[in-house]
Amino acid sequence: MITNTFYSQENHGPYDIYQLGDFLLESGEVINNCKLAYTTFGKLNNNKDNVILMPTWFSGTSKDMEAFVGEERAINPNNYFIIIINQIGNGLSSSPHNSPEPIAMANFPNVTIFDDVRAQHSLITNKYGITEIALVVGGSMGAQQTYEWAVRYPKMVKRAAPIAGTAKVTSHNIQFTQTLIESITSDPLWNNGSYNVHTDVKDGLKRHANIWSVMGLSTEFYQKEMWSIYDVNSFDEFIHEFLQPLYQKMDPNNLILMARKWQKADVSKITNGDLAEALRGIQAKVFVLPIDEDMFFKPSDCRAEQKLIPNSELRMIYSSVGHFALPGPEGNSYHKQIDQHLNELLACTK
Amino acid sequence: MITNTFYSQENHGPYDIYQLGDFLLESGEVINNCKLAYTTFGKLNNNKDNVILMPTWFSGTSKDMEAFVGEERAINPNNYFIIIINQIGNGLSSSPHNSPEPIAMANFPNVTIFDDVRAQHSLITNKYGITEIALVVGGSMGAQQTYEWAVRYPKMVKRAAPIAGTAKVTSHNIQFTQTLIESITSDPLWNNGSYNVHTDVKDGLKRHANIWSVMGLSTEFYQKEMWSIYDVNSFDEFIHEFLQPLYQKMDPNNLILMARKWQKADVSKITNGDLAEALRGIQAKVFVLPIDEDMFFKPSDCRAEQKLIPNSELRMIYSSVGHFALPGPEGNSYHKQIDQHLNELLACTK
Repeated sequence: MITNTFYSQENHGPYDIYQLGDFLLESGEVINNCKLAYTTFGKLNNNKDNVILMPTWFSGTSKDMEAFVGEERAINPNNYFIIIINQIGNGLSSSPHNSPEPIAMANFPNVTIFDDVRAQHSLITNKYGITEIALVVGGSMGAQQTYEWAVRYPKMVKRAAPIAGTAKVTSHNIQFTQTLIESITSDPLWNNGSYNVHTDVKDGLKRHANIWSVMGLSTEFYQKEMWSIYDVNSFDEFIHEFLQPLYQKMDPNNLILMARKWQKADVSKITNGDLAEALRGIQAKVFVLPIDEDMFFKPSDCRAEQKLIPNSELRMIYSSVGHFALPGPEGNSYHKQIDQHLNELLACTK
Repeated sequence: MITNTFYSQENHGPYDIYQLGDFLLESGEVINNCKLAYTTFGKLNNNKDNVILMPTWFSGTSKDMEAFVGEERAINPNNYFIIIINQIGNGLSSSPHNSPEPIAMANFPNVTIFDDVRAQHSLITNKYGITEIALVVGGSMGAQQTYEWAVRYPKMVKRAAPIAGTAKVTSHNIQFTQTLIESITSDPLWNNGSYNVHTDVKDGLKRHANIWSVMGLSTEFYQKEMWSIYDVNSFDEFIHEFLQPLYQKMDPNNLILMARKWQKADVSKITNGDLAEALRGIQAKVFVLPIDEDMFFKPSDCRAEQKLIPNSELRMIYSSVGHFALPGPEGNSYHKQIDQHLNELLACTK
């Protein structure tokens, strides 16, 4: 366990902690005293059927997901009970950097997307008695969790909106996340995950940021010089004053745990690798929402899966930002598209 | 100077060596006894106006460019005098790994695309007395050289076909090539470019290959599982038996020299940074040939430049392979497209 003030209530809260107890993972390993950080908006109605569940993406937190919530938004706390649950390893929920021995740092066990979904299921059923979810919506690794929810709990999930993500990791994604992992583990001060403070690994974290600069944004973002959406004035500032410092605040073990989880995302484990069969089992109404200029969760990969989901539609999100459009740095032009699709989806009764 | 048997006549020849003498670079530095490796096909006609010039791409050699040459191809040695010139730093021409002190290894001076073009100009004018080039055609960094030729020698270059490349490096490309550089320099055995043998840096070269696996191919290549075009049978074999061993044969200093050259490619140096003015000066008929699924020389970037070139057309090359379609691993479906466009271009008289 080490201190990293980036993962604080001040930066990402307010959030609550749910004590999951000793949590048995798919691997057979255990996270002792597993904690889920979560936050809620709105009120659970008497029928307990107004639930919107939102998992988080790689390196993101519940704070990022709040960008989708608002009284004039599709995800409206006046109408819905909204639960945002931080994925294991993201720095707020149980994670390598904040866990004590024997699972501290690089000794933290490997976690799968299904582990996250089971942990989230435990929270919402045990704490709130929820048996029906009106909508699961998440982006990127949040989409991986969204798909896993729809496949593993088909009767419970009424609607699902995976944004910029896939149900099964592609081999291209495996290679991409491998470069993210290697950007950090190549740093001699990574030291197999044993460092005194995350800033020891600043060179690896900088390289990690550089890879994100290539894949997280789109070539159009650079062509149009859209730096101002990040409140910086130039390419150089975007790289050196926004992106590199952002990732250099994070914990290397946390990032690598999440990347490895991403690499193994696969809803077809339930059907012995038959992806078509796994997706055919989804009972939710599904809107598959790729981002047109996404460099690694490409629309063509999303479409291939959407075709296998019975009650589904593909709705394209248009953004020159690419994958990093997710939290909405462009503002209205993005949020309006998301809200229009989610409003339609929430209005679907079958 | 170190030995690396990858850069041999056996692997990449036959090629000849042109002695350029002491070659003064844009930077003011000098490559002593600079050598250009080149190969030719066909015969120079009496008017000396049947010349096709082909520069090489990043990590490629003249051998790769031979894939475009044939008696039933657009680039036909029965009709044209074809000169393929290896770029400086590619391992056959003067390069970090094959140069003696004081410019051996990491002491090799930085080279620009314009340096390459001037060196090539020296070869074709001094050795052959060529004053007119029917066509310059190259891919990727070869396209960067093609553009530089058309801008710097506008009266000499009658036609130009930049494939999958741009006249000015994009900021996205600068970041991409930065990740390529960092994948190698992050290896402790890189040792600032002082190693005994290139295999010392095998971990860095493996990471370098992994980044290429993400950017060099397209997501469609992985979705369609097109491994067989590389004579391997699986994703795992493609990565571990084809791509990683390929880059692990190469010299790290050579790769980094080329990557840095790529990062600074910019035809607008001649016009103090005014790209529109530089491209407006091109007198050649130009076919701009992006590859539709290219991850980093995207059609939108190529099109933005094409619009600035007076006598030009954009001709799209379709391939699910992405950037690595360049040498034609798919065979006919690619070569036929290239040949159709080049035949049309070569038939243009104005």
